[in-house]
Amino acid sequence: MTDAVFHAPARLPRGFRCAAINCGIKAAGRDLSLFASEVPGVAAGVFTRNLVPGAPVIVGRELIRSGRLQAVVVNSRVANVGTGQEGIRKARRMGTAVARALKIAPELVLMSSTGVIGAPLPIDLIEDAMETLVAALQDDPLVAAEGIMTTDTHPKALSLSLGDAVLTVVAKGSGMIQPDMATMLCYVFTDAAVEHRDLDCALRRAVEHTLNMLSVDTDTSTSDTCVAIANGRSGAIDPAALEAGLRTALTMMVETLARDGEGATRLLRVSVLGAADCTQARRVAKSLVNSPLVKTMVYGGDPNVGRIMMAVGKCFECRVDPDRLTAAINGVRVVTAGGPADFDEPRVRHLLGEDPVDLTIDLGVGAGEARAWGCDLTPGYVSENAAYYSS
Amino acid sequence: MTDAVFHAPARLPRGFRCAAINCGIKAAGRDLSLFASEVPGVAAGVFTRNLVPGAPVIVGRELIRSGRLQAVVVNSRVANVGTGQEGIRKARRMGTAVARALKIAPELVLMSSTGVIGAPLPIDLIEDAMETLVAALQDDPLVAAEGIMTTDTHPKALSLSLGDAVLTVVAKGSGMIQPDMATMLCYVFTDAAVEHRDLDCALRRAVEHTLNMLSVDTDTSTSDTCVAIANGRSGAIDPAALEAGLRTALTMMVETLARDGEGATRLLRVSVLGAADCTQARRVAKSLVNSPLVKTMVYGGDPNVGRIMMAVGKCFECRVDPDRLTAAINGVRVVTAGGPADFDEPRVRHLLGEDPVDLTIDLGVGAGEARAWGCDLTPGYVSENAAYYSS
Repeated sequence: MTDAVFHAPARLPRGFRCAAINCGIKAAGRDLSLFASEVPGVAAGVFTRNLVPGAPVIVGRELIRSGRLQAVVVNSRVANVGTGQEGIRKARRMGTAVARALKIAPELVLMSSTGVIGAPLPIDLIEDAMETLVAALQDDPLVAAEGIMTTDTHPKALSLSLGDAVLTVVAKGSGMIQPDMATMLCYVFTDAAVEHRDLDCALRRAVEHTLNMLSVDTDTSTSDTCVAIANGRSGAIDPAALEAGLRTALTMMVETLARDGEGATRLLRVSVLGAADCTQARRVAKSLVNSPLVKTMVYGGDPNVGRIMMAVGKCFECRVDPDRLTAAINGVRVVTAGGPADFDEPRVRHLLGEDPVDLTIDLGVGAGEARAWGCDLTPGYVSENAAYYSS
Repeated sequence: MTDAVFHAPARLPRGFRCAAINCGIKAAGRDLSLFASEVPGVAAGVFTRNLVPGAPVIVGRELIRSGRLQAVVVNSRVANVGTGQEGIRKARRMGTAVARALKIAPELVLMSSTGVIGAPLPIDLIEDAMETLVAALQDDPLVAAEGIMTTDTHPKALSLSLGDAVLTVVAKGSGMIQPDMATMLCYVFTDAAVEHRDLDCALRRAVEHTLNMLSVDTDTSTSDTCVAIANGRSGAIDPAALEAGLRTALTMMVETLARDGEGATRLLRVSVLGAADCTQARRVAKSLVNSPLVKTMVYGGDPNVGRIMMAVGKCFECRVDPDRLTAAINGVRVVTAGGPADFDEPRVRHLLGEDPVDLTIDLGVGAGEARAWGCDLTPGYVSENAAYYSS
């Protein structure tokens, strides 16, 4: 898709710094993160379609209209969702506290909150910690990636070069993930110079094929946010190159998020070919990554391939001809002409234990293609979510 | 809904008998069942909308067009799905074998198969066992209910009186259950006399509000079948009374099926009130019973009630006003005006451990109502389905 070179470890683009501290919302561990650019940047963002959105999403939609941002502040453990007008006031106070500490305009600060829905945001803790947070600004994106984690098992950041520019993605998300505009929280920073309109288009198109095709558990969060800030420090970039880079980086981040889905032991990648159109290909790919019976098949390494046929067939609104349907697991044909192929069962059992597990479905009725990302369903998902609130 | 009196134990209506034996498809236990009326009956049926339907569903859709049936034969362990033209020939042979043994026309025999998708149907075992099966005909519906079980933990049959008539429902189903026309396999027998058109309407309407609102795991089976046969032995019935009785009986059966969902420890019943219309009420009710985060909340008895708001809010196409949204768990208000109510947490934790767990959601925007049935999501669901094929 692009010749972009990934940096390991990830680093921030020129003119960006970040910090994370414990401000007392979590008993231990970083719970408050800040990302800041030296200068205001061009910004674009997409948010959850959930009809009960969090206060930071409601405020964020307003803020992003200007197309300019300079900083992002995020707390974990409490999502500030279902908190009414008081929650909205607290979200604004969170941005104002950052603006005051950084000596910038409050409308240049986007805020996010992630964690339990319905609990009140402890805004005093956040305000009291702001000077300390700003004093901690430094260059390693993994530090701030840690401050935004909830059930993630590790912080997530990656960066790649696009010519002279660097593109860095920091994200979190492990459960309540089937984003409809973005994943739970995902921040993109670049020092490329780009027009607002080009950044906005590139972000929306890239998200459509990456974050919007990710599902850990079919549940669409009330807090999903993906925001990009370009501060222009490395000079102009071809918008097409930026979009290709964004798509490459977000694909890599989506695979990282899916692999760390709650309780997951491996990444499930579903490619659909030969659909009547792209919309139908997306529908079928999502049906496969969302089917608990396909997900438990992957977890158990049990080649019950009839479930693949079931999950295709339940896409009632799609064109499916059982006689043309084929499927493969990591390259081995397991379904042919709508029935099980004569496959080497021990080999497929072994392949289902690999990471990633690639399911390729060919509907054989058209040219529509899509890819979706998910993970296996394990007892760990159930036990983690049976007690998340109390833990 | 009706003054119908349930019979315990269930019994068959006049003129119906049934049998079940082991014919060798399962290593042990009954795997072949027969239901037969003394005389041909009026019949109606609805089948899965899955686009990769099983051979018995394909043949069954043809057979039901005549509106007449006298017998139903069902095997478990092998679903005869994804088996192409050979599967269809075997399904027909299954019906012909019964017709020959009962000395009735083959077009009066409906056949079903349930179990693993993609495996070839061992039709020789079935044909060879037919005389033995017919010789075993008797009066207890639980015997034949046992022969159609897959992962069910107990056989399911119930019957009720409708005036002089008896209505009996025999069903199975535990996983791969979000029927879109019916549950996996559900047979209704009555000795009432009814016109074909009335039976067909009554069955379709009753199924719409009962079996079609059941979901164990969002996965729609390739074999879902619900067939009703009325042999007229007890004389005419008011069609409205028949429909009311059907709805009462199928509601009871749906609760029985949901409570025995794979790995389930309790029944989850979701009532939605105040939706913009009934379609939206159904959509929201299904979203709640299908949300893995709501299901694990019930399993864990953990009152993480923000998940209820999330699951309502992800119904993008519905009218949701967070400020009017309220929710209750077994009668205790837990969400009010789109935020958590000030509820007694230990009490709600206790209520979540009861069976059933009743969630009542009031959207407060209209008069649409619906009810959906499901169950909790447990480690048992995952472990059962991680190895179903091989076990």
